[in-house]
Amino acid sequence: MTQTITQEQVLEALSRVKDPELHRSLTELNMVRKVEVRNNDVEITLAITVPNCPFVNQIEAEVREEVGALPGVSNVTLHIGAMTEEERKRLEGKQEEGTAAKYNQIQHVVAVMSGKGGVGKSLVTGLLATALAKEGHRIGILDADITGPSIPMLFGLQGPVEMGPVGIRPFQSKTGIKVISMNFLLPSEDQPVIWRGPLIGRAITQLWGDVMWGDLDYLFVDLPPGTSDAALTTMQSLPVQGIVIVTTPQSLATMIVRKAVHMAQTVGVPIIGVVENMSYFVCPDTGNRHFIFGPSHVNDVTSAASTTLLAQLPIDPEVAFLCDNGGIEDINLPAILKMSEAFSTVVTVLAKK
Amino acid sequence: MTQTITQEQVLEALSRVKDPELHRSLTELNMVRKVEVRNNDVEITLAITVPNCPFVNQIEAEVREEVGALPGVSNVTLHIGAMTEEERKRLEGKQEEGTAAKYNQIQHVVAVMSGKGGVGKSLVTGLLATALAKEGHRIGILDADITGPSIPMLFGLQGPVEMGPVGIRPFQSKTGIKVISMNFLLPSEDQPVIWRGPLIGRAITQLWGDVMWGDLDYLFVDLPPGTSDAALTTMQSLPVQGIVIVTTPQSLATMIVRKAVHMAQTVGVPIIGVVENMSYFVCPDTGNRHFIFGPSHVNDVTSAASTTLLAQLPIDPEVAFLCDNGGIEDINLPAILKMSEAFSTVVTVLAKK
Repeated sequence: MTQTITQEQVLEALSRVKDPELHRSLTELNMVRKVEVRNNDVEITLAITVPNCPFVNQIEAEVREEVGALPGVSNVTLHIGAMTEEERKRLEGKQEEGTAAKYNQIQHVVAVMSGKGGVGKSLVTGLLATALAKEGHRIGILDADITGPSIPMLFGLQGPVEMGPVGIRPFQSKTGIKVISMNFLLPSEDQPVIWRGPLIGRAITQLWGDVMWGDLDYLFVDLPPGTSDAALTTMQSLPVQGIVIVTTPQSLATMIVRKAVHMAQTVGVPIIGVVENMSYFVCPDTGNRHFIFGPSHVNDVTSAASTTLLAQLPIDPEVAFLCDNGGIEDINLPAILKMSEAFSTVVTVLAKK
Repeated sequence: MTQTITQEQVLEALSRVKDPELHRSLTELNMVRKVEVRNNDVEITLAITVPNCPFVNQIEAEVREEVGALPGVSNVTLHIGAMTEEERKRLEGKQEEGTAAKYNQIQHVVAVMSGKGGVGKSLVTGLLATALAKEGHRIGILDADITGPSIPMLFGLQGPVEMGPVGIRPFQSKTGIKVISMNFLLPSEDQPVIWRGPLIGRAITQLWGDVMWGDLDYLFVDLPPGTSDAALTTMQSLPVQGIVIVTTPQSLATMIVRKAVHMAQTVGVPIIGVVENMSYFVCPDTGNRHFIFGPSHVNDVTSAASTTLLAQLPIDPEVAFLCDNGGIEDINLPAILKMSEAFSTVVTVLAKK
């Protein structure tokens, strides 16, 4: 029987090996530089404090013991190098930020943005993520709305998070989506985060760099309203490949959404497409479509963004109910499949550029 | 025939009088300390550079000429004092910030907040402001949503603003509401404001202190979503008497709105009441009420805030249409009158505390 070993299991094992001098784990000390797993073989690259460290044999023995004990491991190859002068100095301080990032491999980072609040950014993020997860893609969601996070409730997830060997361990949703949100780090979900902009930006880079995302095909970043710190930090500090813009039919929303479009253009991040939410309501009494928020102005947005319309989503009480009860992955609308297909097509084109 | 003279007309006249030495106007030099208008009598207090200024007679003559020429003025009383040493030094620099604030008299400053985006903060701000303006109160709206301002479109107002003698002149809406918004200062309404938090906070204090609000009974501050810079600066730097909280029926919205409630409690600003927007939709085909966004959770908010429910507003396509077309002052809903009455009652109680 072959057992699949994961990188995370190896890191976990390495977190149990302590440097005999510094009394802290190899992972915590940022000594683990690379972990590769091929079938039953594990290859590990370490950087210890100094090349002639007297404890090198002890460290090697303990690593072989811990990793070798993992079920399914047949060979452990070890490369041991030394830290740079600068890295050694940094050891005096606390754990380096963004350690987890070194082990993450993320193919596509996609931001979901609007400028305007309450148009359904988190809904679109969750629907796209779910559709792609159901197709077999490895998906993550980084909830970048630090002061008003919606993602945890949509997926029925609650904190607190656990710490893994090299960072924060994201939650896994029912369909296997890895999710992280500021709300998982708060003592209660209705506690406010009363922070000024610089801290908001810093929180987002930490949710990116300190989280054990592992290998992902798509990471969706759900942005808050506005064109200030959260959007700016995400576009400048994360390798965002493209942006999905969300709007509603109201001309008022459209005006503000166009600001977001112009910001993306200013910063130079491509726009993947536009989703119009709350387009209409089908009256259950008569089956008639009611354009509750007025006629669509989505063409103003797609033409300002020189991009395509990915979907028009109806207002549906069933959707609101599922969102309020952690059931976003159970939402079934014909428009979703069309949206995720159009999305994938554009992303494939962008990736080739 | 009696003509009504306004403080602004007097300031305007004084802005045409220049200090003979400094070649800048009395208003620009911050020499005008007080302007009082009673019927046809104008009383002006000036502070000139030094007590024995050789140009005092010339200044006095020009002030009497300019102000005396205003239609309806019969008497001009002048008190002339001197600046302090510190004030004189400051003259070396540029125009002091917040000059306008010295001439503003605002009885009640009320913030409209939600935490959550897109719930209708600007709608509630506009409806309350209009209802009170129609009752004869002198009303202003400070649109503190710097990156996503909705107020200008709701009232059908467009920039650019004009500079008055001591600061920015707010726009006047159809019902006489004085309105200021970041959008009036931008070259086009869909230009983004890509600013980090500290600039957002500074913009809000400027829209407060550099705007010629004059005498107001109520100034409404329409906050953006979130509990970051805009909300923090407004609550800490402006004399906010109370907060109106806006929510929608969704449990998701309620969770985030409770964060705003807890922020207000942390900062120590009283909550006037809660307005639930988008409560239901009356189908025009059948007259049935549809609870599109699910059953109300407003009691969770009022009990967390220990406050009262001011109104539940329906979703109404006519409202959306009027909002998109600058017609918020023409909205006619029975719930509005009840809302403004409940609001006034609470504010009266708060004012006595």
